[in-house]
Amino acid sequence: MQIAVLGVGLIGGSIGLAARKQGYVVAGWDVDQGVLTAAAERDAVDRAAASAADALTDAEAAFLCAPVGALPSVTAEALAAAGAGCVVTDVGSTKRALAATTADERFIGGHPIAGSEASGVEHARAELFEGAAWYLTPGARSSGVLYERLHGLLVSFGARPVAIDAEAHDRLLATVSHLPHVLANVLVSQAAADLATEGEALPRVGPSFRDTTRVAGASSGIWTDIYLANAEAIAARIDDAVARLQRVAADLRAGDSVAVRDWNEAAGEDRRRLLEADLAGGPVHELRLTVPNRPGIVAQVALALGRGGVNIADMALAPAPDNRTGSITLWVAGDGAGTRAAELIGELGFPVAERA
Amino acid sequence: MQIAVLGVGLIGGSIGLAARKQGYVVAGWDVDQGVLTAAAERDAVDRAAASAADALTDAEAAFLCAPVGALPSVTAEALAAAGAGCVVTDVGSTKRALAATTADERFIGGHPIAGSEASGVEHARAELFEGAAWYLTPGARSSGVLYERLHGLLVSFGARPVAIDAEAHDRLLATVSHLPHVLANVLVSQAAADLATEGEALPRVGPSFRDTTRVAGASSGIWTDIYLANAEAIAARIDDAVARLQRVAADLRAGDSVAVRDWNEAAGEDRRRLLEADLAGGPVHELRLTVPNRPGIVAQVALALGRGGVNIADMALAPAPDNRTGSITLWVAGDGAGTRAAELIGELGFPVAERA
Repeated sequence: MQIAVLGVGLIGGSIGLAARKQGYVVAGWDVDQGVLTAAAERDAVDRAAASAADALTDAEAAFLCAPVGALPSVTAEALAAAGAGCVVTDVGSTKRALAATTADERFIGGHPIAGSEASGVEHARAELFEGAAWYLTPGARSSGVLYERLHGLLVSFGARPVAIDAEAHDRLLATVSHLPHVLANVLVSQAAADLATEGEALPRVGPSFRDTTRVAGASSGIWTDIYLANAEAIAARIDDAVARLQRVAADLRAGDSVAVRDWNEAAGEDRRRLLEADLAGGPVHELRLTVPNRPGIVAQVALALGRGGVNIADMALAPAPDNRTGSITLWVAGDGAGTRAAELIGELGFPVAERA
Repeated sequence: MQIAVLGVGLIGGSIGLAARKQGYVVAGWDVDQGVLTAAAERDAVDRAAASAADALTDAEAAFLCAPVGALPSVTAEALAAAGAGCVVTDVGSTKRALAATTADERFIGGHPIAGSEASGVEHARAELFEGAAWYLTPGARSSGVLYERLHGLLVSFGARPVAIDAEAHDRLLATVSHLPHVLANVLVSQAAADLATEGEALPRVGPSFRDTTRVAGASSGIWTDIYLANAEAIAARIDDAVARLQRVAADLRAGDSVAVRDWNEAAGEDRRRLLEADLAGGPVHELRLTVPNRPGIVAQVALALGRGGVNIADMALAPAPDNRTGSITLWVAGDGAGTRAAELIGELGFPVAERA
């Protein structure tokens, strides 16, 4: 099968590598000639095409890996150039706006949940999609034959295709990805404004502020497009967040300790449920330990757990104000992993507590 | 000098250890006899008192380390039992509500910014306050002589006392600590509700959701008190967050890409400024790398950086969907630390990118 990949950065390059590993022939193209050359040098494509139309010649599947804002025009162009039997899909992180631009039976929207941490073809790898959910948003007129072909391709990449309505997809992503970014932005800007008013430096208040604002101000080049392409769903989620915040503010002003406690308890319950579903391999245990803050100490802890067969699912490290000690929060998954990890850490002589 | 410590858990126990290290004589008491015994066994107190009043006999300084909700009654009791020349302070994380309960010249509110990660006297240590800000909120009638004594004590513990108006303190903490917890709670509950509606599992969307909700559902025993004791300031911050969110929603609905981009850019700028002020030792560099997800890999990276003299200020680890690889985000501080860290990681053969 011949495959066209338009845009050969992290995602497009990884698609190329995964497809070539399956023996497919990949023609790649990119608006940036330097990126295309790098992709060819990394063997992510068999052929560096001279144009988008050239890449699409004889292709049976086309992956459009352009930024969200450019996708409507890239998609129109690709559908015009592609053959009658070519399935055309994209990898944008919002789906409804693009779906609204075409009713072509060859088009099926897509969104692999993978690879958002680093960009560029130098990070591309054939295994990027292994085990990853890959949302597909077929339209009412999308061809069944082409859907089956695309589904099979994604499975051959190791991905798990999940069909979902484009609107439901955008609502879902608004909740678990876009809204967290909005809240982080709001919080960090509010803190900056408040601290300027108070004339205070940011006090060292532990990890809560840093954790909650970690994703604030993510790349505007990528995120402005995402925010706008999913504006309606994000705005609806913001409305919901506003309603919830106003309820909390009202409970606080009324001094309703029962309501505040119930709300906090429910959030803890929700968090455990969501994260346990997210981190495979059994219940998640959260451990907190205090360690000297010197190079190599994280290594010592991780090595001890590694030797003991405990894998660390997630980790947060925060220095204490004196910069001599720090606290490490570890999440380990699996029955008995929490107890085992606590034992191993105890043997190192560090105080450790498992969070209930 | 004789010092009374009422409540000898993490903070009270650490005060006892720090005071004894300076040669002061510490009488301790706790509502929980088991905690008091443990504190005595850890040498955090010279004497396990029979009652709060007993601990206060001949004390020249008293530290009240009870939960925020119990502080008003504990403070009244301590002021009634303490001598005329005894400075009485607390360590609660909100200050205005307690300050309103007394105009006694011996009382000075306090709040050390330390030790929130793990609780219990078993984590207590004399060095807990070294380099830590310790807010003091003297009232209009607080004695200057007693303030000076308390200030000197805290300095002897290694802390940096900072005088601040009780209301300003509570506004500050509402911004950098309480509101992040509120937003995390709201987000996690919203996601749980939305995912139930969509009938979807939480998709593996990278670290944004997990980071932003890390502090959701913190211990209700502690946090219900904190929320209520600072209800007014937190509600005001919620109002401000709501106004900011509504502005974003309006910009999104208007499709105003310039406003959305400017807002996102400003948030990124605010985040860098706040975190650079927070993490001492020069500008902070953020690195992202992709690694195999196996026990010992974090150790390998941390060891390499440790050997190379680069200390890790902060770290976030997220597994990839296939559970075979993961991404590590590292924050390293100091001129040249980012470049040096990238070199060291590159030598290990892992792809690494510095975030601009």
